[in-house]
Amino acid sequence: MNDVLEHYDQATDAALERLFQLLQIESISTDPEYKGECYKAAGLVASELTGLGFETEIVDTDGNPMLLAKYRTSQSSTPHALFYGHYDVQPADPLELWTSQPFSPVIKERADGSKFIQARGASDDKGQLRTFVEACRAWKEVTGDIPCDLTILLEGEEEMGSPSMVPFLQKYKKELKADFVLACDTSMWNAETPAITIGLRGLAEGDVCIKAADRDLHSGIYGSAARNPITVLTQILGRLHDENGRILLDGFYDNIQMPSVEVLEQWKQLGFDGDGFLNEVGLSVPAGEAEFTILEQIWSRPTAEINGIIGGYTGEGFKTVIPSTASAKISFRLIAGQDHKKVWKSFEDFVRERLPKDCTVEFIDRGGDGAVALSSTDSIVKLCAEELSNEWGEDSIMMGSGGSIPIVGDFKRELGLEAILVGFALENDQIHSPNEKYELKSFMKGGRSWIRILGRLGNLK
Amino acid sequence: MNDVLEHYDQATDAALERLFQLLQIESISTDPEYKGECYKAAGLVASELTGLGFETEIVDTDGNPMLLAKYRTSQSSTPHALFYGHYDVQPADPLELWTSQPFSPVIKERADGSKFIQARGASDDKGQLRTFVEACRAWKEVTGDIPCDLTILLEGEEEMGSPSMVPFLQKYKKELKADFVLACDTSMWNAETPAITIGLRGLAEGDVCIKAADRDLHSGIYGSAARNPITVLTQILGRLHDENGRILLDGFYDNIQMPSVEVLEQWKQLGFDGDGFLNEVGLSVPAGEAEFTILEQIWSRPTAEINGIIGGYTGEGFKTVIPSTASAKISFRLIAGQDHKKVWKSFEDFVRERLPKDCTVEFIDRGGDGAVALSSTDSIVKLCAEELSNEWGEDSIMMGSGGSIPIVGDFKRELGLEAILVGFALENDQIHSPNEKYELKSFMKGGRSWIRILGRLGNLK
Repeated sequence: MNDVLEHYDQATDAALERLFQLLQIESISTDPEYKGECYKAAGLVASELTGLGFETEIVDTDGNPMLLAKYRTSQSSTPHALFYGHYDVQPADPLELWTSQPFSPVIKERADGSKFIQARGASDDKGQLRTFVEACRAWKEVTGDIPCDLTILLEGEEEMGSPSMVPFLQKYKKELKADFVLACDTSMWNAETPAITIGLRGLAEGDVCIKAADRDLHSGIYGSAARNPITVLTQILGRLHDENGRILLDGFYDNIQMPSVEVLEQWKQLGFDGDGFLNEVGLSVPAGEAEFTILEQIWSRPTAEINGIIGGYTGEGFKTVIPSTASAKISFRLIAGQDHKKVWKSFEDFVRERLPKDCTVEFIDRGGDGAVALSSTDSIVKLCAEELSNEWGEDSIMMGSGGSIPIVGDFKRELGLEAILVGFALENDQIHSPNEKYELKSFMKGGRSWIRILGRLGNLK
Repeated sequence: MNDVLEHYDQATDAALERLFQLLQIESISTDPEYKGECYKAAGLVASELTGLGFETEIVDTDGNPMLLAKYRTSQSSTPHALFYGHYDVQPADPLELWTSQPFSPVIKERADGSKFIQARGASDDKGQLRTFVEACRAWKEVTGDIPCDLTILLEGEEEMGSPSMVPFLQKYKKELKADFVLACDTSMWNAETPAITIGLRGLAEGDVCIKAADRDLHSGIYGSAARNPITVLTQILGRLHDENGRILLDGFYDNIQMPSVEVLEQWKQLGFDGDGFLNEVGLSVPAGEAEFTILEQIWSRPTAEINGIIGGYTGEGFKTVIPSTASAKISFRLIAGQDHKKVWKSFEDFVRERLPKDCTVEFIDRGGDGAVALSSTDSIVKLCAEELSNEWGEDSIMMGSGGSIPIVGDFKRELGLEAILVGFALENDQIHSPNEKYELKSFMKGGRSWIRILGRLGNLK
């Protein structure tokens, strides 16, 4: 393994050259005009993987193509990893805020000598996915083989919600057989501390619309005798939480799984600056359940959020109207043990039980996804964590994440596979924003991390 | 007086001809393009009043002119009435829903032989104001005099909120000296029962905007730790009422004045169909204070209504945003004894007391007006009520009204005058809507009612 690491360190320029080639392709998925660029990006990596001995296929979808590449190692009976990444990027605008051309990658150096790559996709996800491809290349170039069986799946629609993913997984179920998923699209804990994301909150989301009178009414003539649906909506939604931030839906907390004692203990050691986290956006009082820390609130506790509300007259000036309808968009972040369908059903019940007799309610259930909770003691997770610690010289962290990564649920549901999320991005990488960057250190040590992990996987029988 | 009534009955065609001339003028006040038409309408009535012996003046304002006309009777020491009406009308659109041209008045006859005048302004307020002018004309033509001192004030901006009224009242305070105001811009109780509106609810209105984080946040990363201003807004506004519809602002009900026992007793006798009132707009459960009847809720109880609410993402689809702000428009209908400034202040306190520490709130106090409560035992009110009963053959009703008529407060505040609201419109007159109409019976018996009232006023010393 040391030879491989050494070879990788010496081939930095070529590795960066390959990354820059990919970054120059404007593979923006949200705009159909760039479909040709998406094919170009998929094709570039495909031909490289073919050269490394992969059996490669560009699979058309209703949108941008999937790149599917398989490698069968010469060793027998290694674990089989399915690597996931995405070659598509967000649009670059607003262009005027970039200090360099978004699709002309540059390396910039700071006063302290640290360097970073600036370009759209440098971090999300071209830089990250290339750490894995470079690791494969290094193994192949030094040993003539890659240590374990691999399937690489790169999609081109992640930035638009992966609409083709589920149909693809269903159709290619056989070709995608593997033991687990490795993905490289997440962050480190901080610039020094590597991390594996083992918990992702799930999501249930939808709309509620309350209807009262069959027309808008004049509040002089009808108020207070006529039901005001805005008032009804505030009376119901304003009682979703108790005064301690606890959510009052029936059965909401039944069967929920908290992180293990070890993980919670590790989180305590992180020295997470909760006050700083809130202060940075102008807040100071944690709004979640009072008995939990801020880190627990965002990583391991479920939420009920009103993401939008509208009713009545909302323009300039004033209109003394009692509207006929009022509506809101509601989402619930979920943790392991919660079922998004049950939660939404429980929300519907909560509203219906509190609805005045002469109101009606309509819901739009926009679906959702369960939470992901990976066991921190899973052998592959432990192996990855050890090698991350070895490479970075800092104990790696088992992170939670407040957000949802739908494809992780898709892999679990469609293929029965757990996804191990290892990533080298930093919170300040400006992904989706102007001047996106990726630390050169992330690129180098990221590649080295994967070299180590691949080596260890090859040693498993 | 009988001669005058008889003369009026015989001169119907000429009276209708005069009304039709006024209805043909497109005196729409909300559109500056029709300013010339507004001058034309004021001028038409002015020249007529001059012919009847009034000293007439067209007073320019920042908007449409005031018509000010004074008549000094040959009798000494009669009461001096200030009559108020407005010659401006609402726009006529949607034009395609009219069954005749809005500014080409027609008389239509129903199967039962009853007739009505159809045109924009037929009821609101050209038909109504002409009942008074025709009464003056009938007295003048028969007796050569009008029985009491009169000032007639017709404005041309009622449909746009009377922006010039207060400055005008302040400037013309001396010229407007009178003992009381008579106005003809309200409705009867029903087609058979005349009414005087003695109570008008006041109004306090404004906006509330709650701010939490200094930017929109992603609900995956920040929920539940970050404060959601929509949630805060629903939690506060959803607690404005208790479960019995009572409003929970501090001091809200202090010093409020209920209608007299006699008036309440009269209301009980009205046989008001509260269920029908609600059913007609698709409702069935009174939403106001449980201990009061529907009629009391709309005529004599204060309200707190949310007239508009907005926050977060309200477009198609879904966005898991925690917005930085959420806002609402709130109004309070007030009854006698409540001060609109105190009520708004109490609302601000209510919000501030419940505001989480790291939120801020901004209010827009849009002002308001106190309620009007006329004594049903006032001698002029009693005189008007008696003559209405005499003319219509049904006991006249002392009505409340849920709405506000700001000029009534203006007269009280600026001139110290009580306004007695006598009107002959019906609820189904379609005012502000296509096919506005005024019953021929309202026009005829309305004029006769004023002839009676003017006669009685002339007998007072």
